[in-house]
Amino acid sequence: MPSRFPLPPGSMIGVIGGGQLGRMLALAAGRLGFDVTVLEPEPDAPAARVAARTLEAAYDDAEALRSLADTCDVVTFEFENVPAAVVERLQMLGALAAPGQRPLAVAQDRVNEKEFFQAQGIATADFAAISSPADIAAALPRLGARALLKTRREGYDGKGQTWVEGESDAEAAFARIGGKPAILEARVPFVRELSVIAARGRSGEIACYPLGENHHQAGVLRTTLAPARASDATREQAVAIAQATLEALDYVGVMGVELFELDGGALLVNEFAPRVHNSGHWTQDGCEVDQFEQHVRAVAGWPLGRTDALAQVEMTNLLGYEADDWRALAADPSARLWLYGKREPREGRKMGHVNRLRPLP
Amino acid sequence: MPSRFPLPPGSMIGVIGGGQLGRMLALAAGRLGFDVTVLEPEPDAPAARVAARTLEAAYDDAEALRSLADTCDVVTFEFENVPAAVVERLQMLGALAAPGQRPLAVAQDRVNEKEFFQAQGIATADFAAISSPADIAAALPRLGARALLKTRREGYDGKGQTWVEGESDAEAAFARIGGKPAILEARVPFVRELSVIAARGRSGEIACYPLGENHHQAGVLRTTLAPARASDATREQAVAIAQATLEALDYVGVMGVELFELDGGALLVNEFAPRVHNSGHWTQDGCEVDQFEQHVRAVAGWPLGRTDALAQVEMTNLLGYEADDWRALAADPSARLWLYGKREPREGRKMGHVNRLRPLP
Repeated sequence: MPSRFPLPPGSMIGVIGGGQLGRMLALAAGRLGFDVTVLEPEPDAPAARVAARTLEAAYDDAEALRSLADTCDVVTFEFENVPAAVVERLQMLGALAAPGQRPLAVAQDRVNEKEFFQAQGIATADFAAISSPADIAAALPRLGARALLKTRREGYDGKGQTWVEGESDAEAAFARIGGKPAILEARVPFVRELSVIAARGRSGEIACYPLGENHHQAGVLRTTLAPARASDATREQAVAIAQATLEALDYVGVMGVELFELDGGALLVNEFAPRVHNSGHWTQDGCEVDQFEQHVRAVAGWPLGRTDALAQVEMTNLLGYEADDWRALAADPSARLWLYGKREPREGRKMGHVNRLRPLP
Repeated sequence: MPSRFPLPPGSMIGVIGGGQLGRMLALAAGRLGFDVTVLEPEPDAPAARVAARTLEAAYDDAEALRSLADTCDVVTFEFENVPAAVVERLQMLGALAAPGQRPLAVAQDRVNEKEFFQAQGIATADFAAISSPADIAAALPRLGARALLKTRREGYDGKGQTWVEGESDAEAAFARIGGKPAILEARVPFVRELSVIAARGRSGEIACYPLGENHHQAGVLRTTLAPARASDATREQAVAIAQATLEALDYVGVMGVELFELDGGALLVNEFAPRVHNSGHWTQDGCEVDQFEQHVRAVAGWPLGRTDALAQVEMTNLLGYEADDWRALAADPSARLWLYGKREPREGRKMGHVNRLRPLP
């Protein structure tokens, strides 16, 4: 642990990415007396408007990266598709990036990610790396007649993926995802989608929040219910998966791990996000230290905060024009409202979320 | 209620003053998707570093006020000593200021404030307006041998006040407060200092948080314990005082009302602050909607939020070098830490605070 940690209040934290996750990171950093510099090419970005400083430049802009490295005590990310070259460049310039290059590289490529999990002895769906329709046809007998084809890189919220409906669909399916390098995943007969938000500090300490139960719609997270009802065995499995992942990657910061629960309670990993995660937004109103403050604590080399739930929370995303209901939501005493300040409520765009609290069972 | 209210998310809120109260207002505004412009002459101010925009200019700078009026949907204040001319100017320029000119004018002058309370039938300490040592000598027989002399304007945290130790001290006491227009207040034999944080929305609705019990040291707030143990009658008195004050001033926003509890439970008003108040910081971790979000809601014309306590909170100010304990506080799972990002920990300066939660009794 370099001696500059723990960072004193007043230190500057660089955040690459100016969306809602960056905004909520900046608000949490502000609570602890930190300042934030945001690097984001889009003007008027949500995070920029609560940051001490904004570098409005491409993520790989050499001058902006030099400025980040020169002025920030640590640099972190609000999204995982930061080019590896950017992290390398930052490190060459003397910046401390957290999480580092390896977690980003692993998370950016779905095949690498699955192979990483298997190397840790963590169960995933069966899969095959795909470079052509022929690869699909060859893998289907092993993976099942219906399997999920995803681009290896850059898909999110259900984008860049399609179901392959048997061998005859191989060519068309490959075309549907743009003919890009891909992964074919066996269908998982899961009963629930769960996630665990976990953090690892600079001293190696690990803290996991209670499990969230996630409901998606058209590939996008709709609601998270947390703490999810789960057996001790399921919880322990999830924590073990998170812990192994964090340790294998020498990870610093908050990570979201998406899980499939099978009939009987066994868990498969779907994927991990090397950042704060939408399914962890419930912690903002359900825990003393939320995932955003936890991430700030971790990257700043502070001790991690408490992760126990103070309430049962149902988090609901406000997508697109749903955020136009802000008048009703503002008047609803059961709704804790978070809005991201995005100017354009495009269809399906994440505009905000609502946390509804109930006493713990 | 002008039709521009309720302000939609994305609206710009002007905040005059760049200290910690402005900073926490900006963080709360950011949660609801609002943007903030701060007007503050000091460079590198705590609030400026979490605001979308900063006007670094004197509070009465004509160009800055024009810019505030032109770009902000509403303008509010983090401190009460805003010159009345500033509010007038803003209103002339078409800005909506909340709370308006009258609450500021009343709160800025301790004699006006006491007279205002008496006109509402709200009990205060006995007092006399003072322009000379002779006024002090003349008032002492009525107010008691030992009475508190305060400048009429601009004192805070115990500054600009002194005890008058009998008639022979009149001249020296008047000199000690700089020979300024003053108020002489009878000593109040209070058993506790309480405060109530209250809000009034644009539609006239009123919401009061539970009472806080305040402990001062050398004139500066040290701790607030909330909800304070108090009889129903005491609570009702406090709410009635807050309500009468808010209504008489046609107030919009959050107000802090400081109270003396006498033996037997009767309340006297000490003073009110036309802004969020240090003794309301407990709401940040003890309530679903804290005083900062409540103030934003009120000035934006939103419905007020819930004010019930979810926990018992002990709020402790971190003064001066006490904030150097941030390492220990960050590691203390019972401490919810708020730091203001001030660069210089001068003796007695408010650098941050800690909320410690316990279950409600």
